[in-house]
Amino acid sequence: MMTISKEFTPSHIVLSGGVGGAKLVQGLTACLDAEQLMIIGNIGDDFEHWGFHISPDLDTLLYTLSGVSNQALGWGREGDTWAVLEEVSRLGGDAWFQLGDRDLAVHIERSSRLRRGESLSAITMSFCRGFGLEYNILPPSDDCVRTVVTTKVGDLDFQEYFVRHKCEPAVVGISYDGGEKARLLPFIESALHNPSLRAVIISPSNPFLSVAPILAISNFRELLTNCDAPRIVISPMIGAKAFKGPTAKIMGELGYEMSSFAVAAYYSSNLIDGIVIDVTDSVLAPRIEALGIKTFMTDISMNSLKDKKRLAKQAIQFSESLLE
Amino acid sequence: MMTISKEFTPSHIVLSGGVGGAKLVQGLTACLDAEQLMIIGNIGDDFEHWGFHISPDLDTLLYTLSGVSNQALGWGREGDTWAVLEEVSRLGGDAWFQLGDRDLAVHIERSSRLRRGESLSAITMSFCRGFGLEYNILPPSDDCVRTVVTTKVGDLDFQEYFVRHKCEPAVVGISYDGGEKARLLPFIESALHNPSLRAVIISPSNPFLSVAPILAISNFRELLTNCDAPRIVISPMIGAKAFKGPTAKIMGELGYEMSSFAVAAYYSSNLIDGIVIDVTDSVLAPRIEALGIKTFMTDISMNSLKDKKRLAKQAIQFSESLLE
Repeated sequence: MMTISKEFTPSHIVLSGGVGGAKLVQGLTACLDAEQLMIIGNIGDDFEHWGFHISPDLDTLLYTLSGVSNQALGWGREGDTWAVLEEVSRLGGDAWFQLGDRDLAVHIERSSRLRRGESLSAITMSFCRGFGLEYNILPPSDDCVRTVVTTKVGDLDFQEYFVRHKCEPAVVGISYDGGEKARLLPFIESALHNPSLRAVIISPSNPFLSVAPILAISNFRELLTNCDAPRIVISPMIGAKAFKGPTAKIMGELGYEMSSFAVAAYYSSNLIDGIVIDVTDSVLAPRIEALGIKTFMTDISMNSLKDKKRLAKQAIQFSESLLE
Repeated sequence: MMTISKEFTPSHIVLSGGVGGAKLVQGLTACLDAEQLMIIGNIGDDFEHWGFHISPDLDTLLYTLSGVSNQALGWGREGDTWAVLEEVSRLGGDAWFQLGDRDLAVHIERSSRLRRGESLSAITMSFCRGFGLEYNILPPSDDCVRTVVTTKVGDLDFQEYFVRHKCEPAVVGISYDGGEKARLLPFIESALHNPSLRAVIISPSNPFLSVAPILAISNFRELLTNCDAPRIVISPMIGAKAFKGPTAKIMGELGYEMSSFAVAAYYSSNLIDGIVIDVTDSVLAPRIEALGIKTFMTDISMNSLKDKKRLAKQAIQFSESLLE
């Protein structure tokens, strides 16, 4: 079992949202050992439901990497049962957020430990052990940051926007409440400074909803800006479409071009040195390169474990090519 | 559906703890309609677990009367599943209190509503409807009263004593924290004063752990002392043994004789006019009568629905005989 301390000096750091990001992270775990890879998951979607603290993206990473995720649903756990939800619903309770029984158990135990004063990072690492993972999934902070989606119908918490309103209201802005005050985990800052770091990889996750909440924490954006290691992103889009979720819709609503070019421009050369885009988007490469961002073209869809491993390997190789 | 208001003028009030008491209450529901019977359940055993408010005795009444109780276990729900408990336990969480999935759902929904500011009495009545019951099960108060068992190993919350320590530590005293400050539900006080009241029946529950926490609330003991209607108790003991749980053991530890005589003496003629004891305890009758308490002898064991109905009917008839 690996303990996280200031001595954790990973060669690679990956920032990830939920499903799409977790696929790449799964690929990365086939290329890198636990002590080489620091996995940082988004906590901007965390919320309270039925009195529990739910961390959807940390759990999607946990379930995906340990092989228990429900791939058909895209959330929750394979083969889960629904006794609690059915009964709460029958009693007239809040049933808009679909919680399976074993999924719920994770939230119950997380919440019990938080109430006892354990940190979210310690709990998440303990859960990694509980699910048989050597890898450590980490929240960027033990403090609270919450993604608030400002829409034409008002400010919505992420889950209200995403689950309850099914991403329908037009987005006019996004903020990350608590981000400035939240403290970055000390060993993340150490890892970003450490000379052993060979790349920071941003997963193909929604830039606004999954990656920005991580970057919003304390001085993370500044640390990434000044990071010596190559920083790359894998685009979450092919053509004008995102693999999953409301990425393209939000880009359009916020006035961005709906393409991998806009993803590159959003991060800018301050935050990334390179972007992996789909081969079918090769026409975008010159415009992206003109931003001072290198491009790598490949098939970026991940439909099989083989795809995930190949793309992860290519991302690592691309980042290696950006090392001076 | 019956709404509880000051106009609820039951002919019978029953005070009940969990399993044993619930058997008699089930019998009473065969004799009395919903508008005739006010069912008051003990809340001294209520506690917080996994962040939920659990009301074991109210739930035992709810499950028993609606026919979903697990009679083999003596708690929880028939045919319940254990996915959440298994998973919490696997993650190293607190698994000493056995919660089935559908049982848990009731606690989740109760807690959600309490957080929204609904009262325990309103929630419990709503749950009665949710379980298809016309009868209303009521906590004596919407405030908190907690039974604390002082033992040779220190003060224990009821559930710690009962479940965690399996009633093993010797009891030196019992107190009911919050009882004095707790407000009795106004319609309970009205019902106790109302001339339509024909009897107050105390179920065969543990006098110290199940009935005393109800009587400890506000001026309940005084109201019962001054109540015009006959007040009777069904003994929870046959010979020196209680039907269930630690009643006899605690009586011994507190220096009481272990018998139905001590049950009668504990309530005294201040609180009861009559006691139903087992036919095999007829030798106790003269001593009990000498306390100014009438006796009624019958088979007080309740092994079948038929037994429950018969005993309930006899208890009602006995109380009728005590009306001037």
